[in-house]
Amino acid sequence: MVEPLKPGQTIGILGGGQLGRMLSMAAARLGFHTVIFEPGAAPAAETASQHIAADYTDSEALKAFAEAVDVVTYEFENVPASALDAIEAVVPIRPNRQALSVSQDRLTEKAFLNEIGLKTAPFAPVTTEVDLAQAIAAVGLPSILKTRRLGYDGKGQARLKDRHDAPKALEAMAGADAILEGFVDFDCEISVIGARGLDDTIACFEPGENVHKDGILRTTTVPANISPELRERAFGVAGTILTALDYIGVIGVELFVAGDELIVNEIAPRVHNSGHWTEAGAVIDQFEQHIRAVAGLPLVDPVRHSDVVMSNIIGDDMNLVPGITAETGAQLHLYGKAETRDGRKMGHVTRVVRPASDRG
Amino acid sequence: MVEPLKPGQTIGILGGGQLGRMLSMAAARLGFHTVIFEPGAAPAAETASQHIAADYTDSEALKAFAEAVDVVTYEFENVPASALDAIEAVVPIRPNRQALSVSQDRLTEKAFLNEIGLKTAPFAPVTTEVDLAQAIAAVGLPSILKTRRLGYDGKGQARLKDRHDAPKALEAMAGADAILEGFVDFDCEISVIGARGLDDTIACFEPGENVHKDGILRTTTVPANISPELRERAFGVAGTILTALDYIGVIGVELFVAGDELIVNEIAPRVHNSGHWTEAGAVIDQFEQHIRAVAGLPLVDPVRHSDVVMSNIIGDDMNLVPGITAETGAQLHLYGKAETRDGRKMGHVTRVVRPASDRG
Repeated sequence: MVEPLKPGQTIGILGGGQLGRMLSMAAARLGFHTVIFEPGAAPAAETASQHIAADYTDSEALKAFAEAVDVVTYEFENVPASALDAIEAVVPIRPNRQALSVSQDRLTEKAFLNEIGLKTAPFAPVTTEVDLAQAIAAVGLPSILKTRRLGYDGKGQARLKDRHDAPKALEAMAGADAILEGFVDFDCEISVIGARGLDDTIACFEPGENVHKDGILRTTTVPANISPELRERAFGVAGTILTALDYIGVIGVELFVAGDELIVNEIAPRVHNSGHWTEAGAVIDQFEQHIRAVAGLPLVDPVRHSDVVMSNIIGDDMNLVPGITAETGAQLHLYGKAETRDGRKMGHVTRVVRPASDRG
Repeated sequence: MVEPLKPGQTIGILGGGQLGRMLSMAAARLGFHTVIFEPGAAPAAETASQHIAADYTDSEALKAFAEAVDVVTYEFENVPASALDAIEAVVPIRPNRQALSVSQDRLTEKAFLNEIGLKTAPFAPVTTEVDLAQAIAAVGLPSILKTRRLGYDGKGQARLKDRHDAPKALEAMAGADAILEGFVDFDCEISVIGARGLDDTIACFEPGENVHKDGILRTTTVPANISPELRERAFGVAGTILTALDYIGVIGVELFVAGDELIVNEIAPRVHNSGHWTEAGAVIDQFEQHIRAVAGLPLVDPVRHSDVVMSNIIGDDMNLVPGITAETGAQLHLYGKAETRDGRKMGHVTRVVRPASDRG
């Protein structure tokens, strides 16, 4: 497929969480149908044309999914390679396999980033006790041990303050291959939500400044409190990654700002929580931008028109919702999840100050 | 129900067209589920939780629908009264029955508007040839004969330039009760998209200026080219109607501007095509405002932030879509309809100029 999708064609989405849900609504607005592939509960199914509830190992279901759609994208990066093989035999996957394989593995990701000239935290691979001792020697302490694969929202991570934490940290990996990452003494964390289209156009949203708690994103403030020069360099970092990966779609690039250095923390080959503010603060949101990219439509110049603070609504924050609905300038977005659980992302609210300050 | 709906509760929508579709997406963003009741093809089903495909005479299906939801609203005004009876025995309907019965019948509507002190075109009821002759004498020529019920987008209408057009016009009514309306020599047509909440709050979007062709809305330009004084009076007209009907939800009020007079053309007890611009030009769109009202949530002050022109995409206008996707400042919204037909509303595009001019 090099021609853009036409209205009435169908986009397959791997994963049925809130990102898939927001993608499916953006696709609907552009006249595309969506099919969600998700073995579990799928908030996205509610706003999609179809939901295939099957496991990622179910090759029949994967084939039926691929045959029902014109292009496949995904809302999470941990799709098994075998599932991708089955799909790619039938339809294109966007963003491509390389973007997925790089971001599925923290070690591969960091090595890739260094290769293309970008700075990361110091790191070393860890499987055994001996590896860990060597890694501590190379990376230093304090540092953080993470599983190479399948970690998200602070899961599969253990902090090491000193050598005595090593056995417990290794135990927390439960035998999985891991990576030891040095701590970065950063001033702030920002993210750039970038996009690249089929025509090689690159378009980045204004960087946002992120605050995490317990490994989960709490707020994104836009614009970030950084110099115009750092802002331009942050765009450059996102552009370098997008081009190196021959990427099609929206990417989330998390960066540590340390003095005048930008250190890449993590890349997410998909729409990203720190880009939810775009719904309320820019002329296009990250979901439509992603759909446009994977459908082969032109990207939109993502002009920001407002200053915003996006706050996640997590677990019991749901109790705040009645107050939020009465708040001036607060745009609420809930995900329709049946059950409220600790640490579970239930929605977000973007508080908008118009017009944008001069900064952006 | 006097308490607001809680996230996870369900809104029933009678009618499954594009308005229901946009309402269901707005409901999803607020964490509500939606059930669409629509006997025919339903673009809204794609973005709703459930679709009950049954006739409005199917009392079992209506009962199942009512029992599956916490409140019912509608996207078109021609819901049969018997269907409403069946539903209202189980759950509240918002906006209320009076709003529906008034707007279902052009004669009742005009009489109601005059009763509450608002000006309309001159009119007279017509069933027989004799009525028509008397109506022409009372209303004058040229004038327009319309069925009292079930007309939309210029259907069920016949123009009379002189007396010789009378037989053919009456024939076009196919025996249905009709109303003869005098032509209004207007400067422009505007509409006010108003809303009233459960707490009696009234909130109106900036009036837009409408251009029709062949009885179908083509463009809405915001702000309308009217004086600040007329603008305030237009808000007053919408407020008078909302209060008189004890209305809950969004209403579309079409007004002719003739010199310094405002003449009510038509009211629509629902979200309205001339309010589609709100998605791109205001801090809240008419769909979320309607869902907030019927769910008992606070209304949002519908501040406009941009100058906009909304154009409908009708029939073969679909050929313009590739160009529109490449256009700067154009926000596209397609309805996912399978078949393009002459005169069929396939989508709309809102062209945005930021920031808003001083006028609004």
